[in-house]
Amino acid sequence: MPSATEKLAQRQRQVQSRLCIGLDPDERLLPAVLRRGEPQPWKRFLREITAATAPFACAYKLNLVFYEQFGFDGWRLLEDTLATLPAESTVILDGKYGDVPHTAELAARTVFERLGVDAVTVNPLLGADSVAPFLSYPDRLIFVLARTSNAGAQDFLALRCEGGLPLYIHVITSSLHWPRRAELGFVVGATAPEDFAAVRTLAPYTWLLVPGVGTQGGDISTILAINGEAPLLVNVGRSILYASSDSNFAEAAAHAAAAFARSVSLPLGGM
Amino acid sequence: MPSATEKLAQRQRQVQSRLCIGLDPDERLLPAVLRRGEPQPWKRFLREITAATAPFACAYKLNLVFYEQFGFDGWRLLEDTLATLPAESTVILDGKYGDVPHTAELAARTVFERLGVDAVTVNPLLGADSVAPFLSYPDRLIFVLARTSNAGAQDFLALRCEGGLPLYIHVITSSLHWPRRAELGFVVGATAPEDFAAVRTLAPYTWLLVPGVGTQGGDISTILAINGEAPLLVNVGRSILYASSDSNFAEAAAHAAAAFARSVSLPLGGM
Repeated sequence: MPSATEKLAQRQRQVQSRLCIGLDPDERLLPAVLRRGEPQPWKRFLREITAATAPFACAYKLNLVFYEQFGFDGWRLLEDTLATLPAESTVILDGKYGDVPHTAELAARTVFERLGVDAVTVNPLLGADSVAPFLSYPDRLIFVLARTSNAGAQDFLALRCEGGLPLYIHVITSSLHWPRRAELGFVVGATAPEDFAAVRTLAPYTWLLVPGVGTQGGDISTILAINGEAPLLVNVGRSILYASSDSNFAEAAAHAAAAFARSVSLPLGGM
Repeated sequence: MPSATEKLAQRQRQVQSRLCIGLDPDERLLPAVLRRGEPQPWKRFLREITAATAPFACAYKLNLVFYEQFGFDGWRLLEDTLATLPAESTVILDGKYGDVPHTAELAARTVFERLGVDAVTVNPLLGADSVAPFLSYPDRLIFVLARTSNAGAQDFLALRCEGGLPLYIHVITSSLHWPRRAELGFVVGATAPEDFAAVRTLAPYTWLLVPGVGTQGGDISTILAINGEAPLLVNVGRSILYASSDSNFAEAAAHAAAAFARSVSLPLGGM
């Protein structure tokens, strides 16, 4: 079996794009046509969206919070959706896990052994031993939150710490030295290009997962110019999933995905 | 309806203790008697444990990771367990939530409107706007992770930042000024008494939730001496839940809970 990063690079070459699609069910945005009489509207919606967008996406990212809004039905939806994703697509569980070691071990076992995903996001606040159980899984890909796309990233992640460097830089320089069998990546928002550039300088060969494009307003062309040919994933969610609220929702999502895929196409000579 | 902190203070007076019990199903520790032939062993285990320990605990804390190990069955177990907890007990969902505002809003709605818990834990790394949706719920209690009980708390939470103060102190001084309608509390581990003292000095009237006692080895008598009569919750999990692996597991849990409850009894004149 290829490692998560080999699988990801291979799929990027196949679809010629660095597009990751955020598969997050949002009650306020469900197409009206599915609201009427469909017993499991989200199951059908996500199945049709993934079938329609698979040719344009190298990866799918599922945020646990959006599934848990439906309680146990949401977890069933999550497991159903994971089962229908194309085997070639990299699947990222966006759980933003961060807990003490005993609990982190259990979370890592759940995501990698029960759910069987390729990659996961983790919150590094609790330090090395909270991330170690994830990093101990060979061939998986662990995205550590470094510089998130929200305004609140200024509050602590940008705080100047020892050596006058912001916290997110400490997160990166420390975690690059943590023992691991998995691959390490970082989450870096598109909304702060200067910070993205700082991360890219420190970690020139590391996979970066970039949210904050589309609805959140990040400018992707600047990010792409800074990034060059280094390994990159650009996540777009709502702008693709909810491109139309009519019965053509899947077709509209495919069109939106195709356009985003072109805007983050694989660079010549990349990968 | 009383606020979460009024309810908590009232229950502490009723049971004369500051004991919070961590209700975390741990597969490796399930009593053997329940392994044999019980179709839903955890449902029965948690029901019997809470019935037996309710007279000694003012609160129960449920860590989402331990329920999610069972997938959708785990979410059903979570909702079943929440439904059987005594109405007078404060229920803390230990979700350690930390996400961008749009997602955090959804998480807050899930925990407070769907699950209906009194209190929640949040990870502050993503800053004010990631916690704001939780803080906007009146009468609930939001425990912000400040100084966790694991060794990794040294990596970033103890990092010296602007003004030469460690990050966890920045978290506390900042979050005390965040706009809110909910009550604010902090999670501070028992494993670092000097840091606990620093937090108590900065936040003399704030509820502190203290994990790391029991299995994790924190010394509670030192913490109690530092804390005095200020509002406090001490969480104990495994040492109570898995006090016996025989058929007397509930009785053994009650004995362990009674002993821990006495060790963190309500101070004379407190509350």
